[in-house]
Amino acid sequence: MTTNKQILLVSRPQGEPTTDNFRLVETQLPPLADGQVLVRHHYLSLDPYMRGRMNESKSYAEPQPLDKVMIGGTVGEVVESRHPKYRAGDKVVGIGGWQQYAVVDANQPGALRTVDTTHVPVSAYLGAVGMPGVTAWYGLSKICQPKAGETVVVSAASGAVGGVVGQLAKAQGCRAVGIAGGPDKCRYVVEELGFDACLDYKLHHDLKSLSTALKDACPDGIDGYFENVGGTILDAVMLRMNAHGRMALCGLISGYNGQPIPMQYPQLILQSRLTLQGFIVSEHMEAWPAALKELGTMVASGKLKYRESIAHGIESAPEAFLGLLKGKNFGKQLVKLI
Amino acid sequence: MTTNKQILLVSRPQGEPTTDNFRLVETQLPPLADGQVLVRHHYLSLDPYMRGRMNESKSYAEPQPLDKVMIGGTVGEVVESRHPKYRAGDKVVGIGGWQQYAVVDANQPGALRTVDTTHVPVSAYLGAVGMPGVTAWYGLSKICQPKAGETVVVSAASGAVGGVVGQLAKAQGCRAVGIAGGPDKCRYVVEELGFDACLDYKLHHDLKSLSTALKDACPDGIDGYFENVGGTILDAVMLRMNAHGRMALCGLISGYNGQPIPMQYPQLILQSRLTLQGFIVSEHMEAWPAALKELGTMVASGKLKYRESIAHGIESAPEAFLGLLKGKNFGKQLVKLI
Repeated sequence: MTTNKQILLVSRPQGEPTTDNFRLVETQLPPLADGQVLVRHHYLSLDPYMRGRMNESKSYAEPQPLDKVMIGGTVGEVVESRHPKYRAGDKVVGIGGWQQYAVVDANQPGALRTVDTTHVPVSAYLGAVGMPGVTAWYGLSKICQPKAGETVVVSAASGAVGGVVGQLAKAQGCRAVGIAGGPDKCRYVVEELGFDACLDYKLHHDLKSLSTALKDACPDGIDGYFENVGGTILDAVMLRMNAHGRMALCGLISGYNGQPIPMQYPQLILQSRLTLQGFIVSEHMEAWPAALKELGTMVASGKLKYRESIAHGIESAPEAFLGLLKGKNFGKQLVKLI
Repeated sequence: MTTNKQILLVSRPQGEPTTDNFRLVETQLPPLADGQVLVRHHYLSLDPYMRGRMNESKSYAEPQPLDKVMIGGTVGEVVESRHPKYRAGDKVVGIGGWQQYAVVDANQPGALRTVDTTHVPVSAYLGAVGMPGVTAWYGLSKICQPKAGETVVVSAASGAVGGVVGQLAKAQGCRAVGIAGGPDKCRYVVEELGFDACLDYKLHHDLKSLSTALKDACPDGIDGYFENVGGTILDAVMLRMNAHGRMALCGLISGYNGQPIPMQYPQLILQSRLTLQGFIVSEHMEAWPAALKELGTMVASGKLKYRESIAHGIESAPEAFLGLLKGKNFGKQLVKLI
C-alpha cells in the first residue's frame, strides 16, 4: 500500500488565514476502479483564487468543503491506469489538489489532459501554458482588446498572470506598464519580461502619489487595464484611464480577507465611458484551445518568459500559500512534490 | 428688430447650483447670413447632463462656457430661412440653448432636423423620441442586452429616460422593476407605464433596507440594470445582480455636486462577473436612426407612454432646472416658450 500525504482545510479563516486552517494527514491509496487513473503529482499550483474558496460566503466558486483535500491544479505522471486513454508514464495536468497522489475518474470531462513535455517544461502547464496563462490571454484579448500603440497596464505584473499579460501586450505592439511590489520585481518585469516600465507601489503611500507616478509612466493615458489587486491601485488607474478604456477584473486580492475596499470614483466609469468586466477563466473553456496553443508556442520558442517560486514538499504548501497572499512569491508559486 | 431673451451661465456652482449661477439677458436678433435659419423655440429641454457641464472639471463634455447661452435641446418652428433645405413653418429639433430664438448655421451636420408632428407631438422630440429616448434605447439594447424572461431594473424610473427603459424592457418580454422617489411616481410607473413593480427609495434609508426591498421585487435576481442615479442605489442593485449581469451607467446624478460617492462593493464585479459600461448617447450617432424610428412608431401607436413637467416662460428655466436636479419634476422636464 502506498501512503498519500494530503493537506485538508479544517477551519475557515477569520480575516487573515493561518497555517492552523490546514492539517496534514496521511492516508492509504485505494485500489483503482475501472476508468480510474493514479497520478503521482510532480508540482502543485498555488493560486490567489484559493483564498476566496476558503470563505463560506457566496462567491463565484463553491466554497472549499471543510475536512477535504484543498483544491488545486497539479501536473504529474500516470503511475497506474485502468482507463484506455492513459498509460503509465504519461505526463498529465489535472486538478488533483494538495496531495502527493490523486485517484482520478478519467472519464469525467476535463479531469485530465495529457501534455507534451518535449518543448515545454512540465511545470509551465500550471503557469504560462496553464490556467494563469489562459487567464492573461482571455482578459487581455477578449476584454482589454488593445490595439497596437495603445497603453496596457497590469497589476501584480511579476506574477504568473500579470507577467503574461504584459508580454502578450508587447507582442501586440502596445506600451506595457506593470505595477509590482519592490525594486527586484520591478526590475525583473522591465529587464527580463520586457515591459516598458514598472511602478513599485510600495514607494507610493497614497492615491495621489500612485496616480502621479502612473501619469509619468503612461504619458498617453491608459487604454486597457488588467486588474489583479484592487483597492488603491484600482482607484489610481481609473483616474488615468482614457475615454472608452477597458478594464478586465481578474482578481481583487486586496479584499480577500473581507476588509472593505470601496471604489473611490465610480463616476469615472461614466465620465470616461469605461467598460469594466469581471471574469473567471473557467467559464470560458471555449477560449482555452486557442490560448494554450499560442502560449505553448511562445514558451517553446522562448518568446514568453516566466519565473517560478518553488516550495519543496507537500508539508510546505500552507506556508507557501500564505506567502503568496502577501506577495512573497516571485512569479508563479509552485510546490514541488518529487 | 426682434428681442431674444436668453439665459447665460455667469458663474460655476460651489456644490449645489443656485439661480445666481444664471442671468437673464435680452439681445436683438441679427439679420440672417447665407445658410442660416432663424428658429423660434417652442420647447426647451432640461436634462441632468447639464449639471455636469456647469463644472469646470474634466468630464466627458466640454464645460459650458461662462457668459454664454446655456446649452440645451430645443424644438421649434422655422420663422425665416436662408438655407434651401428649410422653409418657414418647418418644425425642427436642434440644440438651440436656453433662449427664445436661435440663429442656426444649418449646414453644420446635425444642427437641425425636420420632424413630422402629424402623429407625434412636437415636445416628444425632446423626450421619448429624442435624446432621452435614444439614451434609453441604446443603454438597454446595446449594454443591458436583456433576453425575454430576464429582470431589468432602472433607477429614476419615472423620468424621461427611465420610463422608456422599462417600457422597452417590457416590450422585450422582461420583468421591469423601477426605482423612483415617492408614492405618486411609483404608482405612475406601475399603473401607467406598465412596469411590474417600482420601489420608493425614500422609504429605505440604508443599503440593507433598499437591498432587501430589491430582493422582494426581483425574486430571480437582476440581469440588466440601467443606472441614472448612483450612490446607495447602485450599491444595493449590485448586491442583487445575477452572475454575468450587465449594467449601463448613464447618469450618476447623486454625485453631480462633487460629493464623494464611493462604490461599496467593487468586488461584486468580479464575484458576479458583471459588466459595467458608461456611455453617452451622443457618441453613438450610428444608433440614432433605428432607435428614433422604433421610438416614434411606439409613441404614435400609443405603445410608449411618457409624462411631461412643463415650466412656462424662459425666465422659469433656472428654477425648473434646479428642481429637476432634486427630483421635483415628474417625467420629462420642459420649458414651454410659446
